[in-house]
Amino acid sequence: MSYPNSLSNLINCLKQLPSIGEKTAERLAFALLSKDEEYIKLFSSSLLDIKQKIKRCEICGNITENDICEICNDNSRNSDIICVIEDAKYINLLEKMKCYNGKYHVLNGLISPMNGISPDDINIKSLIQRIENENINEIILAISPTLEGQTTSLYISKLLEDKNIIISKIAYGIPLGADIEYLDPMTFSMAIENRNKIS
Amino acid sequence: MSYPNSLSNLINCLKQLPSIGEKTAERLAFALLSKDEEYIKLFSSSLLDIKQKIKRCEICGNITENDICEICNDNSRNSDIICVIEDAKYINLLEKMKCYNGKYHVLNGLISPMNGISPDDINIKSLIQRIENENINEIILAISPTLEGQTTSLYISKLLEDKNIIISKIAYGIPLGADIEYLDPMTFSMAIENRNKIS
Repeated sequence: MSYPNSLSNLINCLKQLPSIGEKTAERLAFALLSKDEEYIKLFSSSLLDIKQKIKRCEICGNITENDICEICNDNSRNSDIICVIEDAKYINLLEKMKCYNGKYHVLNGLISPMNGISPDDINIKSLIQRIENENINEIILAISPTLEGQTTSLYISKLLEDKNIIISKIAYGIPLGADIEYLDPMTFSMAIENRNKIS
Repeated sequence: MSYPNSLSNLINCLKQLPSIGEKTAERLAFALLSKDEEYIKLFSSSLLDIKQKIKRCEICGNITENDICEICNDNSRNSDIICVIEDAKYINLLEKMKCYNGKYHVLNGLISPMNGISPDDINIKSLIQRIENENINEIILAISPTLEGQTTSLYISKLLEDKNIIISKIAYGIPLGADIEYLDPMTFSMAIENRNKIS
């Protein structure tokens, strides 16, 4: 027996989302089948909406329904410091932690020669422009310590060498509460390399 | 920072699906944000489609876009045996196992006095009609061995006592490959109760 067409279309769509396999897609589709019409209409229209309404902030590249995002518009935030991140989804994550009150810049990708992504393909040019036009004191590179992340960090820091601003990167090391016994050697070697003198 | 309206609507919809929490909903929403327009349109329209096009088979209660489902229409199947199941989603599961070639009957729920679900709320009446009108030899109750499942099985078998058909239920016991050490006492007591003489 095959599923009715509309249901198998839905299952195929669900299957293309991250961490959703055949079985989960089927379970979700049947759950959707038993939802009321109001919910289905909202779900269906908000799918179209995110494609039509959401664009990139003209300043920082964050997602927004306006030209300028909420954070760039917020005058209470520290505007002389920029936290450079890979993807707009990390902004909400960092905001929830409530430990940073500056502005952001979303690269929207990382330099990856293997995948044909060059510095021109990500938002580095607009970062340089901001540093030239705004009154920036420091940029913090909050980029994953992967090969692509480190290439990107290095590229940006080389590019900004002569700009007379502080360039920093978030600390890589042992997470709080972790047991050293179970750490991978890469994290451990970074923790050794970035050691701090305590007396 | 709050998400743009359309995105937070989408996250709220996703969160209402089984086993999807706040974090997963956010991750899925961002994954959807980066999908192309064609995919989003198909997803959005198939959501509306399942609500508009899918109905219940007039004979067995299976989901279908026609009046009669594929299985009830299939003359190559054994039509004197009916497998009674709780939910239409189990049909595909059983079909994939390729160990049953009869017809089905979907109860679409189980009797549950605790939740106010009486025998009249599920498709028992139509099952009795089928047994009276079709040439049925046996019904197999393939219902979960929960309290509600056992109540429903008992109710149906009492109702069909004088109908001169074979009533059977699927075997409950130890699944193949299971280690007896880790079995729960209920399964083990069922396995003892339903023991088979081997010599």
